[in-house]
Amino acid sequence: MTAIRIFDTTLRDGEKSPGTVLSVEEKLRLARQLARLGVDVLEAGFPAASERQFEAVRRIAEEVQGPVIAALARPTHPRDFQAAADALAGAARRRIHTFVPVSPSYRRHFLQMDLGEALGLAAKGVELAREKVEDVEFSLVDALRAPLDDVTAMARAAAEAGARIINIADTVGYATPSEVERLVEAVAKVLDSFDDVHLSIHCHNDLGLAVANSLAAVRAGARQIHCTVNGIGERAGNAALEEVAAILKARRDHFGCETGIHLDQIGPTCRLVKRITGIGIQAHKPIVGTNAFFYEISVPQIADAEEQPPYQIVSPEELGLLDHGGEIPRHITRDQFAELAKRLGYVLDGDCLDRCWAAFRNLLDRKENVYETDLETILDEHAMAPEGRYRLLYLNVSAGSISVPNATVQMEVDGEVIQDAGFGQGPVDATFKTICKIVRRFPKLVRYEVSAVTSGTDALGEVSVRLEEDGQLVQGRGVAADIVMASAKALIDAMNKLEQTGRQEPVSEFALVESWQPRL
Amino acid sequence: MTAIRIFDTTLRDGEKSPGTVLSVEEKLRLARQLARLGVDVLEAGFPAASERQFEAVRRIAEEVQGPVIAALARPTHPRDFQAAADALAGAARRRIHTFVPVSPSYRRHFLQMDLGEALGLAAKGVELAREKVEDVEFSLVDALRAPLDDVTAMARAAAEAGARIINIADTVGYATPSEVERLVEAVAKVLDSFDDVHLSIHCHNDLGLAVANSLAAVRAGARQIHCTVNGIGERAGNAALEEVAAILKARRDHFGCETGIHLDQIGPTCRLVKRITGIGIQAHKPIVGTNAFFYEISVPQIADAEEQPPYQIVSPEELGLLDHGGEIPRHITRDQFAELAKRLGYVLDGDCLDRCWAAFRNLLDRKENVYETDLETILDEHAMAPEGRYRLLYLNVSAGSISVPNATVQMEVDGEVIQDAGFGQGPVDATFKTICKIVRRFPKLVRYEVSAVTSGTDALGEVSVRLEEDGQLVQGRGVAADIVMASAKALIDAMNKLEQTGRQEPVSEFALVESWQPRL
Repeated sequence: MTAIRIFDTTLRDGEKSPGTVLSVEEKLRLARQLARLGVDVLEAGFPAASERQFEAVRRIAEEVQGPVIAALARPTHPRDFQAAADALAGAARRRIHTFVPVSPSYRRHFLQMDLGEALGLAAKGVELAREKVEDVEFSLVDALRAPLDDVTAMARAAAEAGARIINIADTVGYATPSEVERLVEAVAKVLDSFDDVHLSIHCHNDLGLAVANSLAAVRAGARQIHCTVNGIGERAGNAALEEVAAILKARRDHFGCETGIHLDQIGPTCRLVKRITGIGIQAHKPIVGTNAFFYEISVPQIADAEEQPPYQIVSPEELGLLDHGGEIPRHITRDQFAELAKRLGYVLDGDCLDRCWAAFRNLLDRKENVYETDLETILDEHAMAPEGRYRLLYLNVSAGSISVPNATVQMEVDGEVIQDAGFGQGPVDATFKTICKIVRRFPKLVRYEVSAVTSGTDALGEVSVRLEEDGQLVQGRGVAADIVMASAKALIDAMNKLEQTGRQEPVSEFALVESWQPRL
Repeated sequence: MTAIRIFDTTLRDGEKSPGTVLSVEEKLRLARQLARLGVDVLEAGFPAASERQFEAVRRIAEEVQGPVIAALARPTHPRDFQAAADALAGAARRRIHTFVPVSPSYRRHFLQMDLGEALGLAAKGVELAREKVEDVEFSLVDALRAPLDDVTAMARAAAEAGARIINIADTVGYATPSEVERLVEAVAKVLDSFDDVHLSIHCHNDLGLAVANSLAAVRAGARQIHCTVNGIGERAGNAALEEVAAILKARRDHFGCETGIHLDQIGPTCRLVKRITGIGIQAHKPIVGTNAFFYEISVPQIADAEEQPPYQIVSPEELGLLDHGGEIPRHITRDQFAELAKRLGYVLDGDCLDRCWAAFRNLLDRKENVYETDLETILDEHAMAPEGRYRLLYLNVSAGSISVPNATVQMEVDGEVIQDAGFGQGPVDATFKTICKIVRRFPKLVRYEVSAVTSGTDALGEVSVRLEEDGQLVQGRGVAADIVMASAKALIDAMNKLEQTGRQEPVSEFALVESWQPRL
């Protein structure tokens, strides 16, 4: 069996999903779960982009054991490598990931460089990285729209400069499997003469082919796949980790490969990413959609009743996808609760344990059956509560066929208690309008999503909202048994993030040129 | 350019999505839109399954112009072919689609037949179909898990019996592109000796490879692809029509193929399927997800500002995906309204036009900007209102931080007015519980989804619920500016469907053996 390494970029390329901004605590929580899942490389972020990103990479490097921790750096900005090295200092194994656009359109658009200059930049980027760490990965951006000779030339330049991993990126999700296979084979041939240099693939899903293209690369000799959990990322996202891992397992007869992924952690990981990012998963999403393993029960089974129906090619049990996890006994003690939380990946200390335990007791009072998924939700909310300017103190709504829907809201804004009432098209609209009046911000609501965490009408409802203010997108999340309450919490969460993100992410990874002068 | 035919099975295999039951009116509405989209073959249903399916196929055959209309029939049940022929009688071009499992496990599980018997059944099925129509399609079920020789033998048997289309089905979504390519090439070689027999592919998406596998089949010689809109269907669904069509367009340089799909109808079609089925689409779904074409705007454009950014490989405008469609002028007349509805695919007659016009005037009063997508929602609700036992007359809710959430509901049940009040964890829960008390049914709520049809807090909210009662799954949909009201409507819609479906779909297409006697 050939070993395929999984390079997880949920925290870097995945976080580029529109409106997604993860706090340091959220990233750390996710990184711990990714380590438990068994990813080989964990790309923690782009430290030069912002203080938040630096801090997230630093803490993950210090606190998360297992995977190689990777950080991104731009070849055009030497200070990026220092920032990456500083952030990664605490990691047992660390990697710097740098990159150069190779296609003519990307080179022109982001670098204004011809191929020769871009090759020089590739070598320089790798050398800057090698001054800081042994393990350097180099990505060829938009390689599938570049001439084959340009790609092999850049791969060679990067390998000669000391890159250990050469990553082929289909940045715009343009390629087909046969094109990927041909390109990877050609690059593999060039890299044959280098000792200990491996090939990697990074695919986007704009045409729905990210996973198929990643597998085509493996057939052609790639030994590492860039993935994100649930396939999140810019536009149509990246290759979905859970699909790649499940295929390589279910079809090991065909591919002859294996990964280090612990399949039973797929379910908990995918649920966590969904909750933290607020990016929903459609019912028919392969592997983790709610219908993915749902078989029509009315079909008569004419063979032995004992026999597994012939539909299933990988089982949901194997993937840790059992509906709600186990039911939690009502008489559980505080110590047992802390133990269970730890098993689910949450290490709770004093204050935080108090908050979570209180929320759990409260839920027990209101809900007949409490499952592990309920607990995950509580833990996410209370173990990672972000600090913010705005806090909800009181809410009351009334709505219906005849009355004008109205809301009364009391909030704390910068420590001051403010209350107001308002009306709207429905109770959620009335609540939103009243909250906006109180905080004196009027962002545009660009998305509003509700999902039930567990089934039944007493389920916890999870509301995710996306707001836009002056071109800035943020998302907020709220959980409550009452959907209007959950909506209010989500809105306030998003408002708090709006407050924070205005000051963050000053640097995009494609800001490769400080200021551009048109060539004459 | 090679012509690739699109065989749409949204109404047959797509409808097998868990909990999805479409009314005759809904199917007809969808079929009209599919014809406008330009599908070559429209599989309208399985007429022998139920009166509802028969009626849907019959009306589509009579009323929908353009595509070949296809219907499914089981080779084991001669009456299926009569039902299919009767239902298809009104169509200008008609096809009967029959099938036999070919893999050992499917043959054993559903037929208890050895290969020789299955080959005989294939020939018999095709002959039964040919007695009714010229155009017969034969599917080899679970072909990707069958020995190659068995597949070619069955393809030959079906072609000899007179099938014009031989369809290779990856029924459990097990295959990889290279396997599909190899199998299709082998079958193509066998069919070379037959005049005018074409190859088709039918892929499921369990491992996320349905689209890639369909394209692999095209490369190997298949000339027809089975698709569903939005990729809906059992488990992880089928190959997504919009992805297949967009790829063949965007990468015609690579595939050298073209379809008859009018790309600008992709947006309206995908939105309609989402509304009618209630099956949500994730933000990063390729082509039609809300983020699919969302580019980070903060990346500096260093090339000419005039130039298109180099990300885009197919444009959202081309695909009819402009956010909300055009804004509708507030002074529009009733005649202009009817004309606009017609352009959106709704032919409104007297009563129905009255209802829709009233609902539109009502919306104008409440909403600042009304878009075409708002109108589509109104038209769906009012032009296709299903009759049912239960009707909502009045609803009032109150909820908040301190008060116990409560609801007062008045309903009409079989013509009788009944009212009651109740409480719950939140206003939606209180409403649901009160409605259940009134109708005296207590189904399990297995899913609850809310989406905003347009953006802004005065957006119409669309609630989709899925209920389970005695193993029977149904889904209901409700639209209103007030989320609690939309939830109540959705619940009542689902309750009405629960009432209907208990009597429907007595026959599954895999009920191939009436009663099974174990072999000794």
